[in-house]
Parts: sequence; structure tokens; C-alpha cells
Amino acid sequence: MTAIVNIFLKQGVLDAQGKAVFHALKSLHFDTIQDVKIGKQIIVDLDTQDYNQAKEDVTKMCEELLANTVIEDYTIENIK
Amino acid sequence: MTAIVNIFLKQGVLDAQGKAVFHALKSLHFDTIQDVKIGKQIIVDLDTQDYNQAKEDVTKMCEELLANTVIEDYTIENIK
Repeated sequence: MTAIVNIFLKQGVLDAQGKAVFHALKSLHFDTIQDVKIGKQIIVDLDTQDYNQAKEDVTKMCEELLANTVIEDYTIENIK
Repeated sequence: MTAIVNIFLKQGVLDAQGKAVFHALKSLHFDTIQDVKIGKQIIVDLDTQDYNQAKEDVTKMCEELLANTVIEDYTIENIK
């Protein structure tokens, strides 16, 4: 099975990379731009056909390694 | 409108970060793990209600700044 994990900084934590890209796009004259947030997308392939086990494993991976839960939120989507 | 851009290394380009995380997960005894790919997810807020203009603008942003199209592929999803 494959799972997609999206990791973004929590609300209130400064997204310096997003701000830098926002200003770069402004200076390239993309005048409609309002905000940019940058996160990570991680695609995990698992050798199991069990949806629940996959979900449990990926949640544990996020908690233990993939996300820094002090400053980051993660969502797991599209397990199939 | 908001658009989500996902950027991953092209097939054949070494994903060193993905490989490192794969081995880290292995060494944490996640035995079901088969592969890990790591990319970027960028959320862009635009001050327009026109779907076609939003799509065109975001495509241009990807080509000019967000993605390095020599080594990266991008997909634009969920414009709304």
C-alpha cells in the first residue's frame, strides 16, 4: 500500500521559506499572489495489504521520525 | 483561490533525502517499509476568482520559480 503524508508548520510558527518565495513571486510581478505556505509531501510505500496496519504504521512513522510534532502538523491521506 | 502544487524529483534522479529517511525507518524497525519519496507541497493563495487565470498563473510560477524543471516534475491540484 502507498500512503501520502503532508507536513506543514503549525499555525503561528514562522514559515520563512514560504515568506521568501512569496516575496520572490511578488518581485516577479505575480500581483495576484496573497500567501505562500511550503511544506513537505512524503510518499511511503508499504509491504502490506492491510489498511489499518498501514495507517497505524504511517502514524507511528510520523510521530517518531517524519514530523517534528512540536512545530509541525501532519496529515495522512490516500492510503491505498 | 487556493492552489496546491506538489513537486517531486523526476524518475531517475536520486532522491537522497528519501533514501536517508527509508534507511532511518528501517533502522527503527518499520519492517513493512518498501520505499520513501520526499517532495515539496506548496499552497498558494491567489487574489482572483477566475479558475483559468489561477491555473495559468500557478503554472507560470512553477515554470519560473517554484520547480526546477530540469530535475523536478510538478502537479497542480485542487484549485478552488
